[in-house]
Amino acid sequence: MIYTNSKYKAKNMKRTKIVEALKSQAYQSAINVKGWVRTKRGSKGVAFIQLNDGSTIHDMQIVVDLEKLGEDSIKFVHTGACLSVDGKLIPSQGSGQSVEIQAESIEVLGAADPEKYPMQPKAHSMEFLRENAHFRPRTKTFSTVLRLRHGLAFAIHQFFHQKGFYYLHSPIITASDAEGAGEMFRVTTLDAKNPPLTETGEVDFSADFFGRQTNLTVSGQLEGEIGALAMGEVYTFGPTFRAENSNTARHLAEFWMIEPEMAFYELEDNMDLAQEFIQYLVRFALENYPDDLKFLDERLAKEESQKKAEERSEMGLVEKLRFVVENDFKRITYTEAIDILLSSNHHKKGKFQYEVKWGIDLQSEHERYLVEKHFKQPVILYNYPKNIKAFYMKQNENEEVGRETVRAMDVLFPGIGEIIGGSQREEILEKLEQRIKELNMPEESLWWYLDLRRFGSAPHSGFGLGFERLLMFVTGMSNIRDVIPFPRTPKSAEF
Amino acid sequence: MIYTNSKYKAKNMKRTKIVEALKSQAYQSAINVKGWVRTKRGSKGVAFIQLNDGSTIHDMQIVVDLEKLGEDSIKFVHTGACLSVDGKLIPSQGSGQSVEIQAESIEVLGAADPEKYPMQPKAHSMEFLRENAHFRPRTKTFSTVLRLRHGLAFAIHQFFHQKGFYYLHSPIITASDAEGAGEMFRVTTLDAKNPPLTETGEVDFSADFFGRQTNLTVSGQLEGEIGALAMGEVYTFGPTFRAENSNTARHLAEFWMIEPEMAFYELEDNMDLAQEFIQYLVRFALENYPDDLKFLDERLAKEESQKKAEERSEMGLVEKLRFVVENDFKRITYTEAIDILLSSNHHKKGKFQYEVKWGIDLQSEHERYLVEKHFKQPVILYNYPKNIKAFYMKQNENEEVGRETVRAMDVLFPGIGEIIGGSQREEILEKLEQRIKELNMPEESLWWYLDLRRFGSAPHSGFGLGFERLLMFVTGMSNIRDVIPFPRTPKSAEF
Repeated sequence: MIYTNSKYKAKNMKRTKIVEALKSQAYQSAINVKGWVRTKRGSKGVAFIQLNDGSTIHDMQIVVDLEKLGEDSIKFVHTGACLSVDGKLIPSQGSGQSVEIQAESIEVLGAADPEKYPMQPKAHSMEFLRENAHFRPRTKTFSTVLRLRHGLAFAIHQFFHQKGFYYLHSPIITASDAEGAGEMFRVTTLDAKNPPLTETGEVDFSADFFGRQTNLTVSGQLEGEIGALAMGEVYTFGPTFRAENSNTARHLAEFWMIEPEMAFYELEDNMDLAQEFIQYLVRFALENYPDDLKFLDERLAKEESQKKAEERSEMGLVEKLRFVVENDFKRITYTEAIDILLSSNHHKKGKFQYEVKWGIDLQSEHERYLVEKHFKQPVILYNYPKNIKAFYMKQNENEEVGRETVRAMDVLFPGIGEIIGGSQREEILEKLEQRIKELNMPEESLWWYLDLRRFGSAPHSGFGLGFERLLMFVTGMSNIRDVIPFPRTPKSAEF
Repeated sequence: MIYTNSKYKAKNMKRTKIVEALKSQAYQSAINVKGWVRTKRGSKGVAFIQLNDGSTIHDMQIVVDLEKLGEDSIKFVHTGACLSVDGKLIPSQGSGQSVEIQAESIEVLGAADPEKYPMQPKAHSMEFLRENAHFRPRTKTFSTVLRLRHGLAFAIHQFFHQKGFYYLHSPIITASDAEGAGEMFRVTTLDAKNPPLTETGEVDFSADFFGRQTNLTVSGQLEGEIGALAMGEVYTFGPTFRAENSNTARHLAEFWMIEPEMAFYELEDNMDLAQEFIQYLVRFALENYPDDLKFLDERLAKEESQKKAEERSEMGLVEKLRFVVENDFKRITYTEAIDILLSSNHHKKGKFQYEVKWGIDLQSEHERYLVEKHFKQPVILYNYPKNIKAFYMKQNENEEVGRETVRAMDVLFPGIGEIIGGSQREEILEKLEQRIKELNMPEESLWWYLDLRRFGSAPHSGFGLGFERLLMFVTGMSNIRDVIPFPRTPKSAEF
């Protein structure tokens, strides 16, 4: 279905991406663009098509002279249809764009029946869009999120590459279950109904594909330490998994995590890197995706305006991002944080639901109070009680009994909560072995992890950043399912 | 354990990476380096330590004046020990390096008992190194491979970013099993021994975490097409899985794959991109890792010299890489390839084990003949018989019955075989539906894939590159288990 101005000779032109075409000033020259119709509107004898090809948030306006091309030329032009348009690049008559294309030939590569195509140009609920995840990237909001997702992923690799870190692929399928970071998915090829059994009637995992029970990784950190204690500075960036039945706006069963791990870094170096890293990424977004962020900023402002006054965020999206780039993160110890909470009016008026005392695992309400009410900026909490943190964290020395701490750190962000968790690692064999015993952990499965302390040990540190949490912060999206192309959540694995 | 020249004042100096120190000409200035001992040797009153920190293939030579620092200063300095060395940067007396460090203070951060540390400075079998995967990155060969693995991963992201492609995270856990690309791992949280059963006595997957049976992905292509038909050009780069019981030097159960997918690309564009992509990556390696490649080149030459003359490769590693960068890949159709095979002396003398005739799936011996004997260069084969290729490949038109082909392409490399497989995709709904029926595939699970052809369809193409296959080619390593940090193979999932 090609509709052509009869005087026009099709030239089989090379496609120009719309992001390039919009920057061009080669007026009157012939051009070909391809993309999907966002909207079509008409006035007497002329039709205007907004065409988008994903290369930019902006559409190319196609002007169709219906006398020249015939009324039939736009018969199949509906929202969602894919077109190839030959035409002339001209300065735009209207506002909102600098150039537009006077169509000479319109080819409908793929129609989209307006009676059936689900993505009509009207407001859709986010849930509706999730159910149509195969068309969601064609919407303005979601394609913008995907561009930022790409940009930040690239910035992550660039940041570490420039600093001399090595990208290390930690394993996805793992037999190690010692991290205790959460519930795991089992990976198996055993018969689901009639698994082989041992003599004592238990499932015989020695007959499974890997000769033992295996799971999907919850963290690449332990393997990251292998890399750091040989190559110096490494990072992972890969999928991680939690089989937790949490149907919330902040949890996914499958998400992407970045975990740098560095030899010769102490806790302070770790905090420096965490701040530098996040500021680099946010700056990268601000510098490279201004139009996408402007759109998301306006989107969020609209969403916020529908909230009650006291629930509204004090800053706009871009303002918040600038603030993060321009200000050091506040660093305080866990003990100082408890003191602040205890002496707060909020506490004195009994407004905290959960008890505040030294030794507790801080609840979301406590973290939010510190970050959003007290400091009003990103906060790094460090030196947490030993008993609420993981076995591998470095124990502080010379502390009073009952107030033993480890060199852990959490970076807390307004509106997001914990965005980074990390620590200096215990590098002293005897201390680590003792901690493993105290916690009754299976030492034998950690043989290689202990070996790292047995031979050529060194101080080292690292942290983990949830990629989708970062994206929520940068895009202002309030549901984590809307910052990943194909969310995996309880009872949901479509596409 | 700090051993210091008594006249020397420790200054708590900032670490300099060895890659930077080796480039420095700040002779006589104070410097601190940290790293792991490769070797130690001594002569009268002086010890020489080769220290490596992973930042480069090269070691820093530490010169220890035993009269000044005392004999005890090297008591714990053995292969694998981790040291922090303060000293003076001086021009090197010996050959092989431009600078060295005159030690003023040696701190042993982590010892490595030579009686127990497995990685002693002698030749180890590759199998021994795999069993010690937690120390393998401390060896020269493996750290070199890891540096190239990092460099090529970065180059992949840079290549696509510069071309305006978006990095798309396709799902790892998937309910779609229609691709037929291979055996799959099941992902489950059901009780392994007593799974819930339905009324008819089958396993009740509706009670599983995702409410249905799920598997680990074998390819992100189908989801990649969702991205391409909205954003234009996308690529995936993530782990993929095959539960095949193949214990070979070319197979892994978990490996990383890159899958670009592009709207508006026909098969020729796809071939152009594949060649440009591989040439970019190989050039990146040649330009950025010359010393690592020189070492691997010599390593391979040594390995080759132990082979029989007729099995030796004609080119050295670097020579082979340069050849790939400088020469177009030869493009021939499957039909032409069959003709070449049929008229070869090799065939006439009955040297092929498997029959050669139009319609066969080419065997490794056929591909090797074409690539290594006939053309002696990379070859792109295209237009394969429809019956030996996947359902989604675009059908060629106007062909004789019995010789129907699809717009598939495979890139074949000397010594590696298939390194890329791809195709133009069938974008016409009716043709795709018909093919799905012919193959008795479950159409209902492909509803969204068919929707892509129903609404706003467009010509599009893509391919998949096995990252480890590429690494084998670039590093010259002959076993795929030695180009990934933690290989997953049948009966093996340690670390």
